[in-house]
Amino acid sequence: MTAAFEREVLIRFGHCDPAGIVFFPRYYELLNAFIEDWFNDGLGVSYAALLGPRRVGLPTVQLQASFERISRQGDRLQQRLWIERVGRRSLTLRISFDGADGPRVSFGQVLVCTSLDTHQSQPFPEDVREALVRAVQQQQSHESSEQ
Amino acid sequence: MTAAFEREVLIRFGHCDPAGIVFFPRYYELLNAFIEDWFNDGLGVSYAALLGPRRVGLPTVQLQASFERISRQGDRLQQRLWIERVGRRSLTLRISFDGADGPRVSFGQVLVCTSLDTHQSQPFPEDVREALVRAVQQQQSHESSEQ
Amino acid sequence: MTAAFEREVLIRFGHCDPAGIVFFPRYYELLNAFIEDWFNDGLGVSYAALLGPRRVGLPTVQLQASFERISRQGDRLQQRLWIERVGRRSLTLRISFDGADGPRVSFGQVLVCTSLDTHQSQPFPEDVREALVRAVQQQQSHESSEQ
Amino acid sequence: MTAAFEREVLIRFGHCDPAGIVFFPRYYELLNAFIEDWFNDGLGVSYAALLGPRRVGLPTVQLQASFERISRQGDRLQQRLWIERVGRRSLTLRISFDGADGPRVSFGQVLVCTSLDTHQSQPFPEDVREALVRAVQQQQSHESSEQ
Repeated sequence: MTAAFEREVLIRFGHCDPAGIVFFPRYYELLNAFIEDWFNDGLGVSYAALLGPRRVGLPTVQLQASFERISRQGDRLQQRLWIERVGRRSLTLRISFDGADGPRVSFGQVLVCTSLDTHQSQPFPEDVREALVRAVQQQQSHESSEQ
Repeated sequence: MTAAFEREVLIRFGHCDPAGIVFFPRYYELLNAFIEDWFNDGLGVSYAALLGPRRVGLPTVQLQASFERISRQGDRLQQRLWIERVGRRSLTLRISFDGADGPRVSFGQVLVCTSLDTHQSQPFPEDVREALVRAVQQQQSHESSEQ
Repeated sequence: MTAAFEREVLIRFGHCDPAGIVFFPRYYELLNAFIEDWFNDGLGVSYAALLGPRRVGLPTVQLQASFERISRQGDRLQQRLWIERVGRRSLTLRISFDGADGPRVSFGQVLVCTSLDTHQSQPFPEDVREALVRAVQQQQSHESSEQ
Repeated sequence: MTAAFEREVLIRFGHCDPAGIVFFPRYYELLNAFIEDWFNDGLGVSYAALLGPRRVGLPTVQLQASFERISRQGDRLQQRLWIERVGRRSLTLRISFDGADGPRVSFGQVLVCTSLDTHQSQPFPEDVREALVRAVQQQQSHESSEQ
């Protein structure tokens, strides 16, 4: 199944621990940066404007991670993202960071749309909702053309 | 159910993001520091010696997180840990970071014992295994005395 | 010369890099946490209230660091802070993180008081200024009694 | 004066603090990533191979920073690096992160070449030394052609 968004990321010296492999909290920083790039470059919605002047939050409420293989400094991982469900106020994603030897980490993530003034959930702004729906449609059309 | 280990942690300015709440990857740094303190102060096994000269790794292989309430700078969270299962080569934990208003984050974590030379799984060293079994027994005796 | 504030800090696994020593950006996180504790526990000024509801910033404008000896996971460092100068809008500190073998890192730091609404400099709030002046006096009285 | 290396970097949500501006320890992570990219892409020396299998360290021993203007999420900074001095065992750099309004941060950094087995200083490996000397020559030829 074709990913809704993908890019490559370099595992850096500073991501790794004395065991010589990625310190697992760093994967979550890489995850958040990946979501940020997806909004900016995939969905065409400025993440900085959204969480800045527009005061719309996207906190993670559920996050399941499977760490399957180790990563070392200098590795280049392919980051891929699939949309599993777009709700009125929430978004379910599946994400994979893959090395040449297969998946290194895979995530199941649920994000919720909130107001940064009240930290209460709210429906996605119209432009975000439209961009998400469009991304789901593209993902599905890739799927059917692959069959 | 009484926790096998607990301590308090301060949410710092540097843990928080422009939304004024904990940036979620920081919770994972706090989680790892909590496990480290549990080994040092709860189990009586030096974490630095284990992962340093003893070359024993404890990578996380599964990690489920539920982010239930927001935390802000200056909050003091109670961190609690329960042992769910001690295997020959793996350990399943349930962890909760609680504020005055209830759980902020809860984790289900599976760690595996590895060799830092090969990054392959191996049985827990005898002293670690014994400390873990003792901790499970104490947790259970607290449970029965609570009934 | 007696420090205006001191405490001990544990070098953790997550502070260290594949070379087995502290990844230097982590020292700056430890530095900021130390300043935070000084405000809370030394000066008696809530850092979270100051930078939160009171909207007073304390950005660093100059920071000189000398990395003198390596630190490894499990090391316990003594963090010490001396006030060099209290101005109307700025504060000059000297800070040292010491191991058993001598200084590991030493910092010269200039912080400025700002409004978090405008990010422009402003005089210290009265209570902060008083706490700083009192801390300088205590530091000096310790000095003269040491002679 | 033409920089020996430059690239653009995005200030991310996760780099910023509740004051809405970069949390200063994050600038040091960005600095280290920039040095890493310079080695990989500018000098043509694999940073991961150097600090990994080749066991050559590049710890920072002196680091002066001036924080001149604030940066916010979504800002794109131009990172620039000038070589001030190449010694047998050490390297002095000047680095600037610039926004549209001028310099945001500038650094003066001294790095030393070490053995990761002993953490003692040692001369730069021949290929690193040659790449550094070449980079200095290019920097100077740009300078003279600019006059």
